Amino acid sequence: MGITLKQAQQAVAAAHEKALEMGVKMNIAVVDAGANLVAFIRMDDAWLGSLDISIKKAKTARFFDMPTGAIGGLSQPGGSLFGIEHSNGGLITFPGGIPLKNSEGQVFGAIGVSGDTVENDHAVAEAGVQALAGQ
Amino acid sequence: MGITLKQAQQAVAAAHEKALEMGVKMNIAVVDAGANLVAFIRMDDAWLGSLDISIKKAKTARFFDMPTGAIGGLSQPGGSLFGIEHSNGGLITFPGGIPLKNSEGQVFGAIGVSGDTVENDHAVAEAGVQALAGQ
Amino acid sequence: MGITLKQAQQAVAAAHEKALEMGVKMNIAVVDAGANLVAFIRMDDAWLGSLDISIKKAKTARFFDMPTGAIGGLSQPGGSLFGIEHSNGGLITFPGGIPLKNSEGQVFGAIGVSGDTVENDHAVAEAGVQALAGQ
Amino acid sequence: MGITLKQAQQAVAAAHEKALEMGVKMNIAVVDAGANLVAFIRMDDAWLGSLDISIKKAKTARFFDMPTGAIGGLSQPGGSLFGIEHSNGGLITFPGGIPLKNSEGQVFGAIGVSGDTVENDHAVAEAGVQALAGQ
Repeated sequence: MGITLKQAQQAVAAAHEKALEMGVKMNIAVVDAGANLVAFIRMDDAWLGSLDISIKKAKTARFFDMPTGAIGGLSQPGGSLFGIEHSNGGLITFPGGIPLKNSEGQVFGAIGVSGDTVENDHAVAEAGVQALAGQ
Repeated sequence: MGITLKQAQQAVAAAHEKALEMGVKMNIAVVDAGANLVAFIRMDDAWLGSLDISIKKAKTARFFDMPTGAIGGLSQPGGSLFGIEHSNGGLITFPGGIPLKNSEGQVFGAIGVSGDTVENDHAVAEAGVQALAGQ
Repeated sequence: MGITLKQAQQAVAAAHEKALEMGVKMNIAVVDAGANLVAFIRMDDAWLGSLDISIKKAKTARFFDMPTGAIGGLSQPGGSLFGIEHSNGGLITFPGGIPLKNSEGQVFGAIGVSGDTVENDHAVAEAGVQALAGQ
Repeated sequence: MGITLKQAQQAVAAAHEKALEMGVKMNIAVVDAGANLVAFIRMDDAWLGSLDISIKKAKTARFFDMPTGAIGGLSQPGGSLFGIEHSNGGLITFPGGIPLKNSEGQVFGAIGVSGDTVENDHAVAEAGVQALAGQ
């Protein structure tokens, strides 16, 4: 079953709350199983360049059903997926994108977060993932 | 002053509520004064192709500070702006995009709606505009 | 001989002055014989969407060494160049773009103006052309 | 407050003067807070390929509100932002792009310079920054 707007908004809201708590300014995107945008917000004064990156992180996480950072580990010079970022109109392969799973464990979307360090981006995305855990 | 996320979300929520009331499935996008996305939602089962159209409508309305349909009236064959849609990476010039103004009457963003007839798209966008009236 | 930066800036300055005189807010672009940008200005509060259009008008005028409106007359439905706007990453074929000629009558660049009615766009571009007449 | 055309032209003129002084041929671009072009010049015989690079540097500096070289330090193989250049239609992450701040210390635009060594590109951009200091 595909992610609903209600679920996407729950994930965005939880990530937003986490970002406020951490004092960071984020772009937060959720895509569905087809890797198409379902919900998006840009926090006031968040980096403008992170808009596109947050959406690309969400898409990348769904394209390969794994956290974006895992792909980045394989796309380094000499790695097996070197240059994969050139596909699909541009991938982002550093942390901040995570697949979202439904109650049956199937990937039904993904969340992408960008606006601060990749560690903080990932932490905020993880808050979105947790908000949907068990749904 | 630029549109805030809070204001953008108010506009999106009002448009969403209007769409539910009308029984239509919409993509709803809000951009800021720089024509960059601030908030977006896609309702369940809304046309997938309307995702891009809603964002392009919002951008088009801000690009020229007028409702998208007004541009479409001039871009017909024989019209003074025939073919303007080829600019800016693709414009959408039929109704559904409307500029958003702040309390001082300055355009500080725009809303774009797509998913049904252009009349309904415009009506839903207008609900978003009204939600920010006087702010 | 190619257009120099100095000449391009003269054309831009003359067009700018004309726009101020007329009370219109314009984007003004000058390209060289290779159709590559040499000088550009966007006046305060000029339409954002006209940025790309002004550059595309200048390029289009140089691509075919004629005023953009002349091409638009041929690209209407049923016309001999119908759909030409799809080429070259997007052409703009309504008035506002005019070739620039050197003292020997050779096209050595073009000016593109966008921000108001096509008649006013053309008038402002023409002021840029006149500034270089005989050079 | 957004950067005005007058301010953008001051920054461009100062950078141009610096380039003449240094004997280098530059492309110089200034964007506003929305990362949209406000003023641009290409010096005679400047590298043609640097046209796009100068604009991308200005955009990149505004996208992340930091000098482009700072991003390049993080986007190397093994770095936390490896591959970020694939976002936003192409970033340039080597030196030559610098944010521009208004009198209140807020970023209200950026300047991008390309045409020589990255050290010289940066020096010329810095001259543009200095021209607006305290405005």
